[in-house]
Amino acid sequence: MFWRSKPLQTLTGRPVRKGCKPAVARDLRLAALRELLTEDIPSLIVTAPANIRYLLDAPALFDPGFSGPLFVTTAQVWLLVDSRYTAQARSAGLAVEVVEWRESPWKSLQKILKEKVVKRCGFESTHMTMAQYHQVKKSLEVELAAAPGLVEGLRQIKDPVEIDALAKAARLGDEVFLKVVETLKPGRTERDVAADIDYWLRRAGADASSFETIVASGPNSAYPHARAGERRLAVGDFVKLDFGGVFGGYHADMTRTVVLGQASPEQQELYNEVAQGQARALAGLAPGVTGRDADALARGYFESIGKGAYFGHNLGHGVGLEVHELPTLGTKSETLLEAGMVFTVEPGLYVPDFGGVRIEDMVVMCEHGIQVLTESTKELLEI
Amino acid sequence: MFWRSKPLQTLTGRPVRKGCKPAVARDLRLAALRELLTEDIPSLIVTAPANIRYLLDAPALFDPGFSGPLFVTTAQVWLLVDSRYTAQARSAGLAVEVVEWRESPWKSLQKILKEKVVKRCGFESTHMTMAQYHQVKKSLEVELAAAPGLVEGLRQIKDPVEIDALAKAARLGDEVFLKVVETLKPGRTERDVAADIDYWLRRAGADASSFETIVASGPNSAYPHARAGERRLAVGDFVKLDFGGVFGGYHADMTRTVVLGQASPEQQELYNEVAQGQARALAGLAPGVTGRDADALARGYFESIGKGAYFGHNLGHGVGLEVHELPTLGTKSETLLEAGMVFTVEPGLYVPDFGGVRIEDMVVMCEHGIQVLTESTKELLEI
Repeated sequence: MFWRSKPLQTLTGRPVRKGCKPAVARDLRLAALRELLTEDIPSLIVTAPANIRYLLDAPALFDPGFSGPLFVTTAQVWLLVDSRYTAQARSAGLAVEVVEWRESPWKSLQKILKEKVVKRCGFESTHMTMAQYHQVKKSLEVELAAAPGLVEGLRQIKDPVEIDALAKAARLGDEVFLKVVETLKPGRTERDVAADIDYWLRRAGADASSFETIVASGPNSAYPHARAGERRLAVGDFVKLDFGGVFGGYHADMTRTVVLGQASPEQQELYNEVAQGQARALAGLAPGVTGRDADALARGYFESIGKGAYFGHNLGHGVGLEVHELPTLGTKSETLLEAGMVFTVEPGLYVPDFGGVRIEDMVVMCEHGIQVLTESTKELLEI
Repeated sequence: MFWRSKPLQTLTGRPVRKGCKPAVARDLRLAALRELLTEDIPSLIVTAPANIRYLLDAPALFDPGFSGPLFVTTAQVWLLVDSRYTAQARSAGLAVEVVEWRESPWKSLQKILKEKVVKRCGFESTHMTMAQYHQVKKSLEVELAAAPGLVEGLRQIKDPVEIDALAKAARLGDEVFLKVVETLKPGRTERDVAADIDYWLRRAGADASSFETIVASGPNSAYPHARAGERRLAVGDFVKLDFGGVFGGYHADMTRTVVLGQASPEQQELYNEVAQGQARALAGLAPGVTGRDADALARGYFESIGKGAYFGHNLGHGVGLEVHELPTLGTKSETLLEAGMVFTVEPGLYVPDFGGVRIEDMVVMCEHGIQVLTESTKELLEI
């Protein structure tokens, strides 16, 4: 029933990024960010938790909400922490100056700015709230300039160590899928199945679940983003499982849809259509394709069979230190896909009052096309 | 070893808010928000996920990141959703108009504003990012006004149904604590213990863990916010367990610190000091006390014994639809504590290179003082 392709260990031995933009080496991330600094953005206040971890090469640093700030100039880097984090930060061997703030991080930062005669700072406008901004503006005697997406741009292209972590995270999901399909039985609640998935992910070695595990059965499967609830699985249900674990700070994300009992002809047809849409997308993905054209590979097929209206969401999204990051594979994305990007390919068709199917893989873009990191079968399982 | 106080079922029968600001009845939350609307803020764009759930009285609506927006005027309410959520929103029986947006939520909102001749909108500046703000400003032909904390203010005072959910969530934590102390053994990793806690929370009925479970052993216990890692528990360790489950959308949060094997005199002393600090705080809490004075109940004691420097964080924080919400019990908080507020009381002392102790309860403020919702023993357990 299940197949496995060749071992993933071979993956990072391959020249996946030849001819494309190279990933930033781990010890050169701060240097790469500095190359993006300009007269307009001569320094950067980094407050997005994942961006801080990326720049420090500390993918599991502190708790998930830790937001520094980190302050980067062309010459130096400071990590500002409150007292809860000081001892940890100082013992972590970070290549930055750790400053403990007392009253407010911004007052401590202002001291640094004054000492170093910094006149102008970029800030992460896609992360900083309006209220924070006004606080910062009040505290810092500098010009502030919106600098969205600098670190997120670097993070799009994964280095081999990151790809290994993502491949390992994906494999944990495959392991758990093998286990969970054996426990799907009429009468079990969606919530129980979700609890099992989360537990097995942790026991398999995941730091945590990447996001709230989705178990959507029967009519709930027609909701793309249902929450696992009290509904009991019943014979004839589509059961949609969307889950993933975090490994070493890196997120996995996969979806499989199975049928409890024998699939009806209508279920088989819907499943085959989604599988066909996904196969077309996977086959057409290559470096240089835009996010929009990637999305159209599946969407165009669904439209050609008159089911475009049942595919309401994007084809996929990048995964890494966050479960949703760049690139976006969707109707509005002009991003050029490049070797080293890791993202999901997850078409779905959701038919109200009937049910829904989504099939989601995580893939890494290689020199001539993608390699799929999630290896669970995509045949329709009748359980 | 463990004690339990009287059953919590009696709680909501008590007139906990007599003479104080009443909680907003569930069906009147939108009405209460409307009473806060003024000429300056005549309507509100709500984008904070927990605020949307609160106003809709749908504490577990969609996935945790769902951010609407919800748009509230004195006359009407609209919930804007993308296609992933439409079917769910329409079948949820919400007392609002559900609008599915296609291109952008803000373009759909602009149509509503134009049709209803709305000239000025408040927005949640503590949630909206700078980048979102500029998007909104570009799309909406209205004046925008920062309106921080309106719904958060309402959410501070819990109604009886909310207090019941929080009490139930707290009780799940107590159940899990009883189980977990039996499994603490030399050689087990922090990560394994954390995985067990998360699993038991789910099996006990929690929707999810409220936050990333902290298991900090030995030297790691000196880090207030350590992450559960690969360290193996050893005899003589302090083991700090900080965890909680979500029940019906409401979060619990508790901490206990135990010793593996027999506590040394120094460990016993540090533990007793924290327990004493917490006891003083619990005894002194009453309606009308400010968050700062509440914090000083424990902090003053720690300072009096020369250990103020080891207590770096706040005494506590509100809990509810989010694990950290208002009120804040800390050195800078002017908030008056009121009956109906639910918050943590969590003093800790962290001694570098020795270890740390934190004891955290969740409490509800009643008419004359607090009732503790977490019932696990606070004697020092030697396991």
